[in-house]
Amino acid sequence: MLSATNIFKDIPEQFREELFETLLRSDNIHIERIVSRGHATPTGQWYDQAWDEWVILLQGQAVLRYQAGDASITLNPGDYLLIPAHTKHRVEWTLPDVDSVWLAIHLY
Amino acid sequence: MLSATNIFKDIPEQFREELFETLLRSDNIHIERIVSRGHATPTGQWYDQAWDEWVILLQGQAVLRYQAGDASITLNPGDYLLIPAHTKHRVEWTLPDVDSVWLAIHLY
Repeated sequence: MLSATNIFKDIPEQFREELFETLLRSDNIHIERIVSRGHATPTGQWYDQAWDEWVILLQGQAVLRYQAGDASITLNPGDYLLIPAHTKHRVEWTLPDVDSVWLAIHLY
Repeated sequence: MLSATNIFKDIPEQFREELFETLLRSDNIHIERIVSRGHATPTGQWYDQAWDEWVILLQGQAVLRYQAGDASITLNPGDYLLIPAHTKHRVEWTLPDVDSVWLAIHLY
């Protein structure tokens, strides 16, 4: 069957927690859709992943913060970057009332 | 350095061939930006890859055709699909005069 799925569709009208959905998973890779609606990483928490993550924001707006140097960056649609393993980071802010849609590629 | 690159930017004003640009490459994965401006796979040619490819169209419009069953599908922004290894396919059409931007993830 030849069919495509749209990454901007099938988002619930209401959801409490940030949405994480696996689009593809293999031994080496995990492709994930993340939908944030004003969500941020809980205060004081940092992601500290043992693997590289390549991420692109496709819709909305977000601020990503790195612990090292206390640096932050605002992401707009189409912005992508690589978050190397063990780079402590957090999602500081996402646009309220709008779905920010991320595509994350975890590289194992 | 904390910086992001935008997948919709830095597209040449003019280009003759479809643009292929590596965004990330490792042993297991190759993340690529493809920009088509009315381009199609040359007549009679089919891609026949030895690896799976996950692809999402981010901007523009395109028609993808599979040899098996002579099936084709129109892709709009946000549409994604997996093209399994050795699935013969071609880009039949892309929107003229507009940049169709693809993100392709080749899984080795």
